[in-house]
Amino acid sequence: MSISPAAVLVSEVGPRDGLQSISRTMSTQDKCRWISALHTAGLREIEVGSFVPPALLPQMADVREVVRHALTLPELQVAVLVPNLRGAAAAFEAGVHKVTVPVSVTEEHSLANVRKTRAQVLDELASIMALKRERFPSVVVEAGMSVAFGCTLAGRVEEAETLRMCERAAAVGVDEVGLSDTSGYAQPRQVHRLFRALQAMLGVRSGGAHFHNTRGQGLANVVAALDAGVTTFDASQGGLGGCPYAPGASGNIVTEDLVFLLESMGHDTGVDLQALAHARDCLRGGLADEPLYGMVSEAGLPKGFRYARETT
Amino acid sequence: MSISPAAVLVSEVGPRDGLQSISRTMSTQDKCRWISALHTAGLREIEVGSFVPPALLPQMADVREVVRHALTLPELQVAVLVPNLRGAAAAFEAGVHKVTVPVSVTEEHSLANVRKTRAQVLDELASIMALKRERFPSVVVEAGMSVAFGCTLAGRVEEAETLRMCERAAAVGVDEVGLSDTSGYAQPRQVHRLFRALQAMLGVRSGGAHFHNTRGQGLANVVAALDAGVTTFDASQGGLGGCPYAPGASGNIVTEDLVFLLESMGHDTGVDLQALAHARDCLRGGLADEPLYGMVSEAGLPKGFRYARETT
Repeated sequence: MSISPAAVLVSEVGPRDGLQSISRTMSTQDKCRWISALHTAGLREIEVGSFVPPALLPQMADVREVVRHALTLPELQVAVLVPNLRGAAAAFEAGVHKVTVPVSVTEEHSLANVRKTRAQVLDELASIMALKRERFPSVVVEAGMSVAFGCTLAGRVEEAETLRMCERAAAVGVDEVGLSDTSGYAQPRQVHRLFRALQAMLGVRSGGAHFHNTRGQGLANVVAALDAGVTTFDASQGGLGGCPYAPGASGNIVTEDLVFLLESMGHDTGVDLQALAHARDCLRGGLADEPLYGMVSEAGLPKGFRYARETT
Repeated sequence: MSISPAAVLVSEVGPRDGLQSISRTMSTQDKCRWISALHTAGLREIEVGSFVPPALLPQMADVREVVRHALTLPELQVAVLVPNLRGAAAAFEAGVHKVTVPVSVTEEHSLANVRKTRAQVLDELASIMALKRERFPSVVVEAGMSVAFGCTLAGRVEEAETLRMCERAAAVGVDEVGLSDTSGYAQPRQVHRLFRALQAMLGVRSGGAHFHNTRGQGLANVVAALDAGVTTFDASQGGLGGCPYAPGASGNIVTEDLVFLLESMGHDTGVDLQALAHARDCLRGGLADEPLYGMVSEAGLPKGFRYARETT
C-alpha cells in the first residue's frame, strides 16, 4: 500500500492468449477490427498473436496479416509470442516491436509445453538473442517465466527455483523477465516476495505480471504486485481463454476489471472503459456465443466514478 | 504485505445476506441442513438470518426456528441482522450471540434502506444498547456501516464522512464497528486507509470487512484489508445474492474463494474446503437452479496445496 499513484501499462493479450485457448478461429478481418477497437480504447501494447506452426495452432495461422494491420495503428507496441528461434525470426522479419519467449520454471512443464528441457529452451533463447543483436536490435525480447508460482505438473515451485531460472534467462541477455501464473497457483504474499526479489536481482529488466484467474485470485495478486512496484500487467478482454470443463476458470484476468481496479486506485492506464465496451462488442461479434467474463462490464461504472487522469 | 500469518475469522453471511437477496425462500429444513454443513466445514460464525417483519422479507420468516437450530451447534457464534429495536429485542430473546445493526453512512441510503434518517438510526441503536446493557449484556452488538466506501444513491462518499458516522455509532457504545462495501464501490487503497483510520480511532472495537463482489474487486480489497490488520471477513457461500440483471455481480465475496485466498496466504481459517464443497451441495439441494458463483469450486485445489495449519 506504499506505492504512489503512477501510470500502469495494461498489456492486452486476448488476441494471443485468449484466441489460442479456444478451439474456434476468429476470422482475420474480425481480429483486425477487434485489435483496432482495443487500440481506440487506449491500449498501447497488444499481444496480437503467436508465431507457431499452423498445424499446431490453426487459430494463429494468419499472424503475419494481423501483425501487418497492427503495425498501422499509431503508438501501438505490437507484441507476439514465439516458442523458438524459427518463430522469433519470422516475428522479427514481420516487424513486431516485442516478442515474448515462454520459459518454463519447471522441467516437467517445459517438456510438456514445448518438448524441450529448460536447458534447451535457454539455448534457443540465446540463439534468439544472437539474431536480435545481429539484425533486429530494436526489438524487445522478454522471457515470460511460465509456472513461476506453481505448476499443474510439478505442484509447488520453490521461490528460489523460480529466481534461479529468471537469473539464467537474464544471463542470456533478454531485455525483460516477466513472471507468469500460468494456472492460477499464485497467492499475494508470494507474488510480492517474488517480484521484489526479481527487482533486486534484475533492476529495470524485471518485467511485468501475467496472471490467470483460474481460482479467482487474479486481482488480489495484482494488488500485491502493485505494492511490490510492478507497473505492467497482462490481461485479456472478457477473460477470454476459459476452459470448457471449468467455465471462466482458466482465462487471464479480465481487462475491463483490471482497468477499473487500477483507475479506482489512482493509476492512469490511458484506457477508456466505454470504448473498451465497444471493443468487447467487436470481440463478441467475431466469436458469437463464446462465453465472456468480467464483472464491470455487467455492473457498469459506479456513480461518481472518476478516472485517475481526472483526479490528478 | 507486512502482516505475519495469523488466524482470520471468516463470517458466513449466506443464510442471511444471500437468502434475503433472492426472491425464492429456502425451506427451514434446508436452511438448517445447510447451516449444519457450514459448521461442519469449520465455520465458527454464521449470520443465520435477520429479524425483520415477514411481510417485508418472507425469506426470513422462520428466523427463530433457524436460530434455535444454530444454537445447538457447538462453538458456533450465532449472528443475525436486526434493523431496529424491535428486531434486536426479538433476537436477544431468541438467544443469539451477536447482532449486526446496519447504519448507513449516507442520508440518502439511510432513508431508502430503513426509511429513517441517520440520526434516527443512531437513536434506535442507542435504545438497542440500553436494552442489551440492561438484560442481555453478553450479546455482541456490531454497527455495520453500509455504503462506507461509496453509495449507489449519493455516489462518492468522503472518507471523513464515513469515519464521522463510525465515531457516532461508537459513541453509542456498540461493541464493534465494521465497514460494508454494500454495492461494490471500494478500492484497495481506500480500504486500507479507512480500516487503518478506524483502528486508530476505535482500537479493538474496530470490526471486520463486508465486501460485495459487484465489480469483481472483492478479493483485491481483502488483500488491502488484511494488510491493514483486519482479521474478520464476511463472505457468502457460492456468492449467493446475485442480481438477475447482472449475473454474479451483486453477491458477497465467495466463501470458497476467500478461504482459498486466506489459506494460501498462510492465514488459518479453520475451514476445510472439501467439507465446504459438501455444504455447497446442501445449498444447491435447497435452491435447485439458483446460480452459484466462485472459481475454486470449479477449478479445484492446486496440486501441492497446503492449508496454513499444515505449514506452521
